[in-house]
Amino acid sequence: MEKPNSNILVIFGASGDLAHRKLIPALFDLQIQNLLPDNFGILGIGRTSLSDESFRDKMASALDYAQLAKNTTPDIRTLFLNRLYYTAIDTALVDDYQKLAVRMKELNTELKTEGNYIYYLATPPSLYSVVAHNLAAVGLHKCPKGQGCRRIIIEKPFGYDLKTAKELNDSIHSIYDEDQIYRIDHYLGKETVQNLLVTRFSNGIFEPLWNRNYIHHIEITSSESIGVESRGGYYDHAGALRDMVQNHLLQVTGLVAMEPPAVIDADAIRNETLKVLQSIRPIKKEDVSKYVIRGQYTASKIKGEAVPGYREEAGVDPNSRTETFVALKFFIDNWRWSGVPFYIRTGKRLPTRVTEIVINFRQTPHALFPFTQGSQRNQLIIRIQPDEGILLKFGMKVPGAGFQAETVNMDFHYSDLSGVHLPDAYERLLLDAMLGDATLYSRGDAVEANWRFITPILEAWNEDPSIKVFGYPAGSWGPENADALIDGLWGWRYPCKNLSDNGLYCEL
Amino acid sequence: MEKPNSNILVIFGASGDLAHRKLIPALFDLQIQNLLPDNFGILGIGRTSLSDESFRDKMASALDYAQLAKNTTPDIRTLFLNRLYYTAIDTALVDDYQKLAVRMKELNTELKTEGNYIYYLATPPSLYSVVAHNLAAVGLHKCPKGQGCRRIIIEKPFGYDLKTAKELNDSIHSIYDEDQIYRIDHYLGKETVQNLLVTRFSNGIFEPLWNRNYIHHIEITSSESIGVESRGGYYDHAGALRDMVQNHLLQVTGLVAMEPPAVIDADAIRNETLKVLQSIRPIKKEDVSKYVIRGQYTASKIKGEAVPGYREEAGVDPNSRTETFVALKFFIDNWRWSGVPFYIRTGKRLPTRVTEIVINFRQTPHALFPFTQGSQRNQLIIRIQPDEGILLKFGMKVPGAGFQAETVNMDFHYSDLSGVHLPDAYERLLLDAMLGDATLYSRGDAVEANWRFITPILEAWNEDPSIKVFGYPAGSWGPENADALIDGLWGWRYPCKNLSDNGLYCEL
Repeated sequence: MEKPNSNILVIFGASGDLAHRKLIPALFDLQIQNLLPDNFGILGIGRTSLSDESFRDKMASALDYAQLAKNTTPDIRTLFLNRLYYTAIDTALVDDYQKLAVRMKELNTELKTEGNYIYYLATPPSLYSVVAHNLAAVGLHKCPKGQGCRRIIIEKPFGYDLKTAKELNDSIHSIYDEDQIYRIDHYLGKETVQNLLVTRFSNGIFEPLWNRNYIHHIEITSSESIGVESRGGYYDHAGALRDMVQNHLLQVTGLVAMEPPAVIDADAIRNETLKVLQSIRPIKKEDVSKYVIRGQYTASKIKGEAVPGYREEAGVDPNSRTETFVALKFFIDNWRWSGVPFYIRTGKRLPTRVTEIVINFRQTPHALFPFTQGSQRNQLIIRIQPDEGILLKFGMKVPGAGFQAETVNMDFHYSDLSGVHLPDAYERLLLDAMLGDATLYSRGDAVEANWRFITPILEAWNEDPSIKVFGYPAGSWGPENADALIDGLWGWRYPCKNLSDNGLYCEL
Repeated sequence: MEKPNSNILVIFGASGDLAHRKLIPALFDLQIQNLLPDNFGILGIGRTSLSDESFRDKMASALDYAQLAKNTTPDIRTLFLNRLYYTAIDTALVDDYQKLAVRMKELNTELKTEGNYIYYLATPPSLYSVVAHNLAAVGLHKCPKGQGCRRIIIEKPFGYDLKTAKELNDSIHSIYDEDQIYRIDHYLGKETVQNLLVTRFSNGIFEPLWNRNYIHHIEITSSESIGVESRGGYYDHAGALRDMVQNHLLQVTGLVAMEPPAVIDADAIRNETLKVLQSIRPIKKEDVSKYVIRGQYTASKIKGEAVPGYREEAGVDPNSRTETFVALKFFIDNWRWSGVPFYIRTGKRLPTRVTEIVINFRQTPHALFPFTQGSQRNQLIIRIQPDEGILLKFGMKVPGAGFQAETVNMDFHYSDLSGVHLPDAYERLLLDAMLGDATLYSRGDAVEANWRFITPILEAWNEDPSIKVFGYPAGSWGPENADALIDGLWGWRYPCKNLSDNGLYCEL
């Protein structure tokens, strides 16, 4: 396995939740696998005053929390923690960046990192542009040796609508070239999302079927069983459409629907997904209530325990019209997908936590065998989480006299592979950024294409009070109106994985 | 479940091995499932003098042997045994059939079976025609009430070559209409063979791929790990080509390659399989050594134990040139299959007992992802025995950095279905014959088509001493020359199931 070039990873927002829960554990996991460069350091940036030592202590607790240490030796743990450094600055104040520049220079000499700096912006979105410009103000954006030694990783959300996303792109582009910018979409870091590409393009049997001739419709479901938890304040200004659809689920759509790329590299793949996103038929404001159903969970009981409704959650406006559930129907107007409906459904306080893509193939043109159970149609289910794997529903003969058929499952689970380590999304993404591979990061034009599709829906909701926010009891599959969205004959798939209520109808 | 009409099943050769091991246990299993008619009897015919009572005693031991009784009650066992009757005649002597006619009349009255008689010829092949004609001599072939009440089931082998098969067909047709004749091919009674039809025609995803555009080649392997055992005398006059290919494996080929039938009934399905058999490109005598490899097992050690060579087996000519292994390559010259090679391989004393069909799909047109293990091709493996089920080999992403692929298995086993009873082939076939459904029986024209393909091979072997019989050590996968038959790049599949020697290369 190739190791990245020497570098210093600078984490802005190092005392925050993301660094603690995701970034530091992911980096430690890379250390365990010996995938970090020999000359390497992590510089935490935050407003809190901390010494390197006390930052290391704090991060040691992050490792304990992530329970990764069990796979390693105390030596590796110590080695890793000694690679951590910290500098306190107010990231909003340009004057503080002189101090940062001095520290970077020292570390660069000490660690022999050849001036390769990667800036990870794990800050509130309002600071993305500010940090980028402040870095530029002290010359930290510029590479002493020419190209590629300064990169910037930007967390989600990237923009709040089309206008703000464009502004942010323009602002960052005024300092960095597109190939220096790494926009995080942690869904793309997921193993099973990447496997979409491999499944489609390394199997001769799937690609011939992967089009309007054989596919009836495609469903993408990402459900959470929890509510907004402590994120009520943030979430009430975002909602499910911004939080899940604009970025993750549209990117997944891009991978499901793309043409075969010419080669496997960042631009070839992202050119193809962009074409998909640009081909999505816009939903006009006047059609929003026809194609998009939004919902909000109401107080209910789950497994006998009372759970609050969304409007009663901490940080949420008691009159909030923010959606905690959204279901969309849309079309991709190109040669491959013309006429094939795509459905996306996501929400909080649904019966289970599952993310899956369901390829619903057309029925057989002629029904030769009666089905005692199931039907004359195949489903290919690509499960992104949990229980990562792939499942094909197909018809087999019911054993015994006659010729009756029933639907059974042929399946593969990653967990079947013994000794397999499914890397965390951040682990993959951080490694890729260090390697200079942006394949699994969102490109600026794709982010704008997504916002172009999403923004009219957001505007219609804002402008037209007649578009309803449907209530749904916490622990149910969302408002019933979402069922009317999908073609009557088929219906949504209701996966059985980890159901919070065993009484609910579900499909294995 | 529909019950058959009242009838008497007359088993010629009732004291033989087949009746004892297969027919009586299968009928008892039907009894347990309450699938036998209310008015029903089984009349055993043999040369040995036995009373009804002593025949019942003998057959009771057959039930013990088959270990079916555990699923039932003593009452059902007694009920079943009391349905057994016996009459001793010399089946070759026409005069003895008067006695049979009298007994049938008595039983018919006693059991209220409305004159419905089914004759099961579990006799040596030389008696098939004799019994049929003797039955006719005393009028037992004719139905008092018009049509369909007299049926004749004929065991394999049906003929010894094209000429004798035609003669036998003509002889039987002079007495019975084709729709009264049920030619046993017990392979067609196997659940997983029938499932071929359901798998192909109840899944929208397989049929579009099931042709020359997507399939590279098809393998059918039926291997046995045992030698000829006590059947040396019979086998030495038959050989693998007659014993397995002419009937079973060509019929399986018919089901794999057929066009969708218009409806599911005996004639529609058998019309389609016949078209396949008629489309097989004949192998000319001068091409036999190019397309057909025959072998004979030689003495060797299996798991440290010495096993004799074929020529040392009891009943086998010490200079025998009879093949215990045969591998064929052939083509089906029709629109669907033009240019797609079919391979059949069968033999005794191979490393394992397995019967499977392997659909080898073409590679992806362009190899985007490197494979760390496996290759850019899909295999669909339909396993007929043991561990009945279906297996799809497909490419998935190797977890971790980069985009590497490996081949993994997605599988379904019948044994996954809880509480499933996979009926024995004879159980299904006997029930079908009583129901008047000949779908799973070989039609006369198909039998002749098979012999038409096989006979020139047999003749070339007889006539041309330069065509070699290759030796292969007992416990190996046959002569190495069989490997040259299949396209170099791919090779045969070597299944791992129940290998007699764990040191052998195999594929899961």
